[in-house]
Amino acid sequence: MNPPGTETPAFYAGIDGGGSSTRVLIASEDGSVAGQGHAGPCNPNSVGIQAAAGAVAEAFAAAWNATGFSHTAGRSAHPGANRIAAAFFGIAGFTAFPHRAELQHQLGSLPWLAGARVEVDNDLRIAWAGALGGNPGVVVIAGTGSAAYGRTHDGRSDRCGGGGPLLDDGGSGAWLAAQALRAALRESDGRGPTTALTAAALSFFHAETVLEIAGRVASGAIDRAALARFAATVLNQAEAGDTEAQRIAQAGAEQLAELADAVRRKLLPEGPLAVSLTGGLSSVSSYTKRFQQAAGNRMPGAKFLPARYSPLAGAIALAAHLGGARHPRALIDAADRLAPLGTG
Amino acid sequence: MNPPGTETPAFYAGIDGGGSSTRVLIASEDGSVAGQGHAGPCNPNSVGIQAAAGAVAEAFAAAWNATGFSHTAGRSAHPGANRIAAAFFGIAGFTAFPHRAELQHQLGSLPWLAGARVEVDNDLRIAWAGALGGNPGVVVIAGTGSAAYGRTHDGRSDRCGGGGPLLDDGGSGAWLAAQALRAALRESDGRGPTTALTAAALSFFHAETVLEIAGRVASGAIDRAALARFAATVLNQAEAGDTEAQRIAQAGAEQLAELADAVRRKLLPEGPLAVSLTGGLSSVSSYTKRFQQAAGNRMPGAKFLPARYSPLAGAIALAAHLGGARHPRALIDAADRLAPLGTG
Repeated sequence: MNPPGTETPAFYAGIDGGGSSTRVLIASEDGSVAGQGHAGPCNPNSVGIQAAAGAVAEAFAAAWNATGFSHTAGRSAHPGANRIAAAFFGIAGFTAFPHRAELQHQLGSLPWLAGARVEVDNDLRIAWAGALGGNPGVVVIAGTGSAAYGRTHDGRSDRCGGGGPLLDDGGSGAWLAAQALRAALRESDGRGPTTALTAAALSFFHAETVLEIAGRVASGAIDRAALARFAATVLNQAEAGDTEAQRIAQAGAEQLAELADAVRRKLLPEGPLAVSLTGGLSSVSSYTKRFQQAAGNRMPGAKFLPARYSPLAGAIALAAHLGGARHPRALIDAADRLAPLGTG
Repeated sequence: MNPPGTETPAFYAGIDGGGSSTRVLIASEDGSVAGQGHAGPCNPNSVGIQAAAGAVAEAFAAAWNATGFSHTAGRSAHPGANRIAAAFFGIAGFTAFPHRAELQHQLGSLPWLAGARVEVDNDLRIAWAGALGGNPGVVVIAGTGSAAYGRTHDGRSDRCGGGGPLLDDGGSGAWLAAQALRAALRESDGRGPTTALTAAALSFFHAETVLEIAGRVASGAIDRAALARFAATVLNQAEAGDTEAQRIAQAGAEQLAELADAVRRKLLPEGPLAVSLTGGLSSVSSYTKRFQQAAGNRMPGAKFLPARYSPLAGAIALAAHLGGARHPRALIDAADRLAPLGTG
């Protein structure tokens, strides 16, 4: 052990392995040195265990190279030099992945992590850690998909939602867009009322008919992420007064509130509750307002907090906690500078 | 022209180009000689124009070979010998396909069809022609997907639904299954009531958790057709008294009735209306009953007829009509023997 005051600062790694991209952040405890790396999708249920682990390895290599550290990673470097003390992985779909143990083993065996403390959990956990700064409460994620995750003072946790675009994901971007296209389809074939969403959809997707858009959705030519990008337009149409868009926005907000409430009932049936909305749609103020109103009706004592940090900064915070970082605040601030909220 | 009584019988081709398979049937006007051929999926929105046209060509070649005719097809054979007089194509997704004219041209140029009269339309048209025997009315298709199609005495037609599993398809097999998995997800995470559908789903899909099934649906490991096969179980659970399954079956039947009613309002707002339910789910009597009740509430004058022929026999009937067949009844009976209802 080095004499006090001369220790090489420890490094921590946060990993956000999402459904469409993987991000790795390596930050020093004192906030002075760090690297970031990106790679492709990471949900092992969608891409398989090898591609998921491969995406993490690719992003990790890029992050490590960006730090400027020697290529000799882990224990093979001289003791204590540029060593990653702890890493926290938030992996999309991890909870539902049948081969969790195998994936966990592969991630823990990455060369840069030799000797490090490593924990792997689902990406809801890092979203929670980022949004609520690690404090007890419930986070609702409204991005391409939707889900809620809560955690108590004593480390109990529970989740809700996230069943994917066909089965669940109420209130998410893909869901809002799908509902809007459904309303346009129903207008087009006489089942539903007229709506400004039809013209909006034709323009957004550069199509001549709504059925053509539906065909492209069915074939995957418009994928889930591309679909979700239409959600902002749907929420704008609600703001502009379209009745169908308003109905959809309201139903989405109610479903997000339902997610939060289900987690609350399981975890924190009594006492004050912190609730935070995060993900891409949390930046749309009209939608956040609808959510807070719907959630307030279900949970009168809830206190709404804006999300503080990105999921990637949340992962770093959890890594710092895992490794017993001496200066976690400097570390999280470094992570927040490198991966601010809204870029995740 | 041959003297009367000595004509070589004319042949007709019916083509059912569906989302999961392509079937071609060649039948002689007197019902004595015919061949069938199969190939893969045909919806050009999903598989592209080349694969769709390729599937038709493959199925056509197999059907032609099965007839035992010379390989020299069309005009190149001696005049009048084993010539296809007319062909009718029902192609899934045709209405919404942006390159309709090109596909139409490719299909009409198949070597076996030289000199034949050819028409291409969507597969709803052949389902209607089969189910209602070419008589005016509305057919509701409840298979993997759902849609309705109607046609009047004077040849006006309209369609409704069929927007695909993510956006539409209410009351279809994939929809019933998705709703059931959604109910199971909602039970599992505390949002919804307990339901027998959870145990039924875990057993049907050989899974340990509903989230695991959701992951497999999201990744496509359980595709739309595999999902739809769970629908019979859902309807059985409704019969057995499960409240959630009953709610889903009822909502599905209402949506099918809504499809029929929307087509009726556009096409046949007055007068008697024949309505037929076809597709895989029409064989489940409890579901047909729910549909008839829901449709009867919306359309008090409707007369419900069981589906008469398969879509493939419907395609042959339309080909016979197109080619002015002398003995369409013998032809359709031949088609019905080779492609009975329930095998489509």
